[in-house]
Amino acid sequence: MMTDDDRRFLAEAVKEAELGWAEGGIPVGSVLVKDGEILGRGHNRRQQNGSVTLHGEMDALENAGRLRADVYKGCTIYTTLSPCPMCSGAILLYQIPRVVMGENVSFQGDEEHLRAKGVELVLADDPACKALMARMMAERPELWAEDIGV
Amino acid sequence: MMTDDDRRFLAEAVKEAELGWAEGGIPVGSVLVKDGEILGRGHNRRQQNGSVTLHGEMDALENAGRLRADVYKGCTIYTTLSPCPMCSGAILLYQIPRVVMGENVSFQGDEEHLRAKGVELVLADDPACKALMARMMAERPELWAEDIGV
Repeated sequence: MMTDDDRRFLAEAVKEAELGWAEGGIPVGSVLVKDGEILGRGHNRRQQNGSVTLHGEMDALENAGRLRADVYKGCTIYTTLSPCPMCSGAILLYQIPRVVMGENVSFQGDEEHLRAKGVELVLADDPACKALMARMMAERPELWAEDIGV
Repeated sequence: MMTDDDRRFLAEAVKEAELGWAEGGIPVGSVLVKDGEILGRGHNRRQQNGSVTLHGEMDALENAGRLRADVYKGCTIYTTLSPCPMCSGAILLYQIPRVVMGENVSFQGDEEHLRAKGVELVLADDPACKALMARMMAERPELWAEDIGV
């Protein structure tokens, strides 16, 4: 279930996605949150850094820096889009117990695997998140095709 | 089944792991190979770069740079250690069809998930790879505990 805090932090992930788009990149953003505090924020860096690993969630984790295992276990990760297999794997590696995702219509990641491993998934079904992806698909579909490996 | 090429490229992954250890880091290395050519090589960068996402496999993918989807589909990734959930997810994202892993005694990653998704896993059960991990566990166990999120 979405809380007021969830809506607030998802909006921060959307800001990250907008920042990525303004930089000419793929508009997926993420924030890592514990106890009402953002530990790391980030967005997809494929275009900007030539990075094939820094998706939004990965960039947020990277920017949060090295944390103790028990910190991750108290976190929620917010992402504008359903986490791809790589980002899902990172969530499992660090045992982040809760994921709030903006939408999963434009793309559905490895939600089944996350659920099977006990991760709580909350779907916001957020119009702003869908609009981010719809704009990219309309204006720069080649960015997405490369990023998602099709 | 291990081929002569597999042995040769796994030895390159071991060189990467040794390089990481010499830098004060976690000794896990990886190379991404297509048609007998190394496209990218890398090793765990947690200590060196403060990176929580650049495991050996991720670093090799990152250093290979942006590749077309069909390139990944013809690749084998070599890694000195069974791929963790994050690295397994990256392999699935890019649809790399074959993984040669040095060993899976020190740590076993998400092999079951990879197999279920149709990835071919080849286990070298290589003494040099086991020795890399054994030395770290004996001399610097705290490095590993943090990296693998325990």
